[in-house]
Amino acid sequence: MRTDHPTAGRLVKAPENFLDADGVRRVFDEARTGRRDFIRRAFAAAGTAGAVAAGPAVARPGAAASADGDPDILELPEHTRGLGQPVVTDGYGKPSKWEANVQRRQSPGLTQTAQASVSFAPLQSLFGIVTPSGLHFERHHQGWWDVDPSKHRLMINGSDDRIVRKPLVLTVDELMRLPSVSRFHFIECGANSGMEWGNVAVPTCQYTHGMLSCCEFTGVPLRTVLDMAGADYRRGRFVLAEGADGSSMTRTVPMELVESGEVLLAYGQNGEMLRPENGYPLRLVVPGVQGVSWVKYLRRIEVGDRPYGTKDETLHYVDLMPDGQHRQYTSIQECKSVVTTPSGGQVLVGRGFYDISGLAWSGRGRVRRVDVSVDGGRNWRTARLQTPVLAKCLTRFNLDWVWDGRPALVQSRAIDETGYVQPQMRQLRAVRGTRSIYHNNAIQTWLVQESGEVKNVQLQ
Amino acid sequence: MRTDHPTAGRLVKAPENFLDADGVRRVFDEARTGRRDFIRRAFAAAGTAGAVAAGPAVARPGAAASADGDPDILELPEHTRGLGQPVVTDGYGKPSKWEANVQRRQSPGLTQTAQASVSFAPLQSLFGIVTPSGLHFERHHQGWWDVDPSKHRLMINGSDDRIVRKPLVLTVDELMRLPSVSRFHFIECGANSGMEWGNVAVPTCQYTHGMLSCCEFTGVPLRTVLDMAGADYRRGRFVLAEGADGSSMTRTVPMELVESGEVLLAYGQNGEMLRPENGYPLRLVVPGVQGVSWVKYLRRIEVGDRPYGTKDETLHYVDLMPDGQHRQYTSIQECKSVVTTPSGGQVLVGRGFYDISGLAWSGRGRVRRVDVSVDGGRNWRTARLQTPVLAKCLTRFNLDWVWDGRPALVQSRAIDETGYVQPQMRQLRAVRGTRSIYHNNAIQTWLVQESGEVKNVQLQ
Repeated sequence: MRTDHPTAGRLVKAPENFLDADGVRRVFDEARTGRRDFIRRAFAAAGTAGAVAAGPAVARPGAAASADGDPDILELPEHTRGLGQPVVTDGYGKPSKWEANVQRRQSPGLTQTAQASVSFAPLQSLFGIVTPSGLHFERHHQGWWDVDPSKHRLMINGSDDRIVRKPLVLTVDELMRLPSVSRFHFIECGANSGMEWGNVAVPTCQYTHGMLSCCEFTGVPLRTVLDMAGADYRRGRFVLAEGADGSSMTRTVPMELVESGEVLLAYGQNGEMLRPENGYPLRLVVPGVQGVSWVKYLRRIEVGDRPYGTKDETLHYVDLMPDGQHRQYTSIQECKSVVTTPSGGQVLVGRGFYDISGLAWSGRGRVRRVDVSVDGGRNWRTARLQTPVLAKCLTRFNLDWVWDGRPALVQSRAIDETGYVQPQMRQLRAVRGTRSIYHNNAIQTWLVQESGEVKNVQLQ
Repeated sequence: MRTDHPTAGRLVKAPENFLDADGVRRVFDEARTGRRDFIRRAFAAAGTAGAVAAGPAVARPGAAASADGDPDILELPEHTRGLGQPVVTDGYGKPSKWEANVQRRQSPGLTQTAQASVSFAPLQSLFGIVTPSGLHFERHHQGWWDVDPSKHRLMINGSDDRIVRKPLVLTVDELMRLPSVSRFHFIECGANSGMEWGNVAVPTCQYTHGMLSCCEFTGVPLRTVLDMAGADYRRGRFVLAEGADGSSMTRTVPMELVESGEVLLAYGQNGEMLRPENGYPLRLVVPGVQGVSWVKYLRRIEVGDRPYGTKDETLHYVDLMPDGQHRQYTSIQECKSVVTTPSGGQVLVGRGFYDISGLAWSGRGRVRRVDVSVDGGRNWRTARLQTPVLAKCLTRFNLDWVWDGRPALVQSRAIDETGYVQPQMRQLRAVRGTRSIYHNNAIQTWLVQESGEVKNVQLQ
């Protein structure tokens, strides 16, 4: 497989059947004949496999190679001979230089300014369910800030003085003294996969589905703070969340979600403080709900008796239906999945065994099952789910596949614990039309061509 | 609370009872009188809480402050007025500048060279169970390397030609084509908390327990590759793992662990490729077993019929017992826990409510329960466990505590699913003596003094 960095694609050229000893023999031959110089220098060890039969129990490559008598083979790689880098070269570590192409990326031309824009997470290069914070997707409405946490405040008030009897202003440190919880949740922008509505098949998984990330969040249930403030839950059925950046992001959250204890005033993300791009020092976490409601740089919570109808819930983040009406407040992210390997832009360079892998999630709860098709949805096989399978969290799935070298249409279909089945694009279009931007949870199709190249296609 | 950065300590000065509206009133007063200038400039919003009663539903701080008539109060913080940073300022994100002191750190003088040394994870500043890869503890025996993954190979062989019938050499890419699994596991150095044996009460949680981290690892079960190589599991009861760096780290792993499917040839860590300091591009993951067996830069697996007796399992990583004998191969990390807040070096600056928080783990399986004492073990209360509680993985626990301002001896005691109870130090010493370095899983005691300062102490 060819990709933009040595290992991101994970599907590289290998002997057609590499499960036998052919690969070993090839490496031996190459090491002996010098055809592939790096193997001779970097992995002389390989040349010793045949010789270790009678060797010492802890035979080392250097020693074994020396028995070979070829001085060139004696040259071990520098990392085996030398003294490496010291600890704490940097008090905060960085990825390998060989992984420099695994980055979040902008889609050129997607937005007019880079302050009101998006960067996509490189899903095709990720494993498991945790998104490293350095690769978490970004969506800013007026750029990101590194807000001084000692000056940041969170205000809790009501739309009138009976709905919140004891308004509060809390420092970040005061908030961090309160009982905390830690939970894994996905966050997906409502516009994720939005280009597909218009049949604009963008080339890679990073750009089709990369407004999706998953972290362990730590914070205080919003319910705890509303209790402290004496909120009236009978009248106060809605909450307004307001951010401190210039975009004045404001979103209404139904009180049912808050009362369940799920909605968090979060300061922690993957074990450390939130990243500046993700709302440091405080953001709202609204599990299952589209990312725009996870208000960043959170400075105010107001309790009210009706939805607030802010610009970002009445003009934006609405669904344009076939009859020309806008559908508002459709904020739960429905059950969805995507195969990340193989996916658009990758190239399979030989038939044989592959580990199909992807992600599934549901804003309604747990993923119950994921099916995978390699013939465009005619036949399905059930994938393995990695554990733990958590509510409103990504679930990693895998399926063994032997590619026969012929064109294949790879799809995944997730089913959540409510029984909801992820729809085919044509099923979703029958209800929603083609003029939406948001809330596309249709099945994604990747075409593996005979050349091995993988393309984003839409089935009719 | 005073700590080395604005929020790491999480226990800062607050009104003695901040659960009522006193804090709000104080902020109002201070904003009006100008006593705390940053509040006036940065959070003029606070001054509006009393005024919003009859205000518009989505009243904004700027507008409300303007009603106040004080031009100084009108000055909103820059991040509310201006245009922020663009997306993808860096394709790989970094923590906030305000968190620059949250770093892994060396213990001065602990080792003679920084290549054969340790850096400790800042547990006192972390949340949940995931350790960010940039803060994962380091332990190198000859420094770290950023190995070229295209040149790296993994060899699988036997101590004789019948114990592994088809020796293999795999590239990293070949390995990444095989069926993969993703799992959360802790890794703890066998020497973690080692200084406590000698009653050297090092000052902070970072240095007492910071050779501990927890990640989501992705890789191929070693069992899969041994099956491919035709390993004889009847005779081959042990595996030798060998690293490619100059330290020639070699460790014996019992075949039972491999047969269970738990032992992984891991390339993924927290969603991305392993970090160079943690063995990029390939390390062994041996859940429940001390970190030294998680061989980094893994280049060879040999199957044999007896333990290999390498230097790092016969001379090092052994336990010196009271009778002068060395105990070898005690590699499972027994059940253990530590309170990370409050912990040594932190300062509680006022009585009142605190969220006691800490970590528990067991190399034998799941944590069943964690108890917390604030009187040196006389009385215990059961802590809340954050979910999911996973086998051989960190578990985060929390307990509500109202500090009365008097000296307190804070301890945590974990119990795992086998029923094993974490011992008091005196119980462990009765069996193990005082001359060990490794495998100290005793209960840790933090003394909260009347001044609020927290110290590492040992109870007799």
